[in-house]
Amino acid sequence: MQAIYLHKRQVLFTTDYPKPEPGVREALIRVLLAGVCSTDIEMTRGYKSGFGGVMGHEFVGIVEQVADEADQDWVGRRVVGVINVLSANMMEGLSHKEAEHKAKHHPARGALGISGRDGVFADYVTLPVQNLWGVPDSVSDEQAVFTEPLAAALEIREQLQIRPSVRAAVVGPGRLGSLCGAVLCLDGADVTMLGRRESSLQLARKWGMMVGLTADCADASFDLIVEATGNEAGLAEALRLIRPQGTIVLKSTFAGETSFDLTKVVVSEISLVGSRCGPFGPALRLLERGGIPVEDMIDGCYPLRAGYEALVHAGRSGVRKILLTP
Amino acid sequence: MQAIYLHKRQVLFTTDYPKPEPGVREALIRVLLAGVCSTDIEMTRGYKSGFGGVMGHEFVGIVEQVADEADQDWVGRRVVGVINVLSANMMEGLSHKEAEHKAKHHPARGALGISGRDGVFADYVTLPVQNLWGVPDSVSDEQAVFTEPLAAALEIREQLQIRPSVRAAVVGPGRLGSLCGAVLCLDGADVTMLGRRESSLQLARKWGMMVGLTADCADASFDLIVEATGNEAGLAEALRLIRPQGTIVLKSTFAGETSFDLTKVVVSEISLVGSRCGPFGPALRLLERGGIPVEDMIDGCYPLRAGYEALVHAGRSGVRKILLTP
Repeated sequence: MQAIYLHKRQVLFTTDYPKPEPGVREALIRVLLAGVCSTDIEMTRGYKSGFGGVMGHEFVGIVEQVADEADQDWVGRRVVGVINVLSANMMEGLSHKEAEHKAKHHPARGALGISGRDGVFADYVTLPVQNLWGVPDSVSDEQAVFTEPLAAALEIREQLQIRPSVRAAVVGPGRLGSLCGAVLCLDGADVTMLGRRESSLQLARKWGMMVGLTADCADASFDLIVEATGNEAGLAEALRLIRPQGTIVLKSTFAGETSFDLTKVVVSEISLVGSRCGPFGPALRLLERGGIPVEDMIDGCYPLRAGYEALVHAGRSGVRKILLTP
Repeated sequence: MQAIYLHKRQVLFTTDYPKPEPGVREALIRVLLAGVCSTDIEMTRGYKSGFGGVMGHEFVGIVEQVADEADQDWVGRRVVGVINVLSANMMEGLSHKEAEHKAKHHPARGALGISGRDGVFADYVTLPVQNLWGVPDSVSDEQAVFTEPLAAALEIREQLQIRPSVRAAVVGPGRLGSLCGAVLCLDGADVTMLGRRESSLQLARKWGMMVGLTADCADASFDLIVEATGNEAGLAEALRLIRPQGTIVLKSTFAGETSFDLTKVVVSEISLVGSRCGPFGPALRLLERGGIPVEDMIDGCYPLRAGYEALVHAGRSGVRKILLTP
């Protein structure tokens, strides 16, 4: 089958990748659309450098086959899938929601297209049926492919009480940052999207957020900041902009160590909260209700064979979602 | 008067330091005992390198004089004092508790013996009366001098809900770490004091805590970790020992930037919570009730003229509280 895979940090395309076989309690899924995430791009730069295999973890697809008779109902359904994967016997008897919770931080987990498990930039992918969530008919493929990053944005609300009266900002108006801003706005909170360039703020403005240039903001302006720049400088900017006793949500993952002013964190009693994968159920309901016009984020769609160009395009400054289709 | 002061990072002693005059709504306090804190030692190594003046912020003393007739009741009282200082007109009409809260993170604040305000390693110090808390008769000078660091330990409980069922650890069994461990123990929580050497764990064992060597602990063993090592390696150790979605309280302040694995924080959804000064009222009540035998921590008492030797002694590995007396 076609696949875009990583081999020693090199991004390669082949039409000869072995088609996967579903294991116990797994489904074989034909990929309809896949999305490029900043994590994919970071992996080409050395993040998770031990990984070799098919890239990608954001997708919507159709179940073509299952390994077990008990799972026949899944065949033909349009699905999205949770990226953290445990073996079938570790998830036995758990609901989809319980399985999502258990796998999320389990030391034995694999992560789709990130560690120990081939991903979705391919014609087919396999996943345990407990990782699958059916997509409502009214949600288009172009919307459903945003389920995973939208869930990651919703995770902020799983972790923290966000008061509607909060003064919040998102530093980094990119792929994930835009979704975080949209999710923080849902209940009327005062959310400012901050970027380095005016041109990066058009989407946030269209979505009705306040916008600003990071450099123009006064120190200690915000109660809550989501750091989603994807680079080391973002944390320093967030530390400048947060008020004493405020909270910074960390959403960037990248290779290497980060240097920062720990003493400022202690003296100003700032909380830093790491935040990663979130709940698929609420993300799908939010898409079904049309709460966030995610399609506005699509900047291009490439065939798998042009995967390298797609990654280069996705890595350019100001570009949001690039999709891949087999 | 006698004073130990910093001048271009040099620790100097003089008998000729000008005796301070209390300003508007301030008291002149004769120092009875002062305590050496790790922050004092860090300042001799470059932390807050802009500061020049009398060192020290932990003390108990007696009010000898006040500037205003309205504050006459304070004269003759034994007091401890909050270290964050605002001008009298910024605190007008506030209760002591409100003043403590307002000054704590105010950008215009001074900090006793740390920035913009002469400290307590001297015969006399001045402070606004709103910074003072009367010491109950049953609390000895040797106990009262621990009010400030005990309040800093209690700050963890101000910031976070600490469940009695938590698996907690303190990394760094030093001055502040010991008090943090004692405060976490108060309601029956399972608290382990972790050090690099067996010899550093004697006090924690005497106080009934579980103890262990940091290197012997398995990864992801704790729900909550207080990082109180005072050095950069402590954060890396805490990040190894915390479970996914756990919380690390940061108590160390030192000069320079810290490098750490931000991606681990994000992927494992760890919270880092900076924590500094705490509430004096609860600390005094806890001392009055004899809840924590703080005197066990005293490793020496020096006259002010031997201040340099006192700081050297306090800076040695395994040494806890060193006191100074005029």
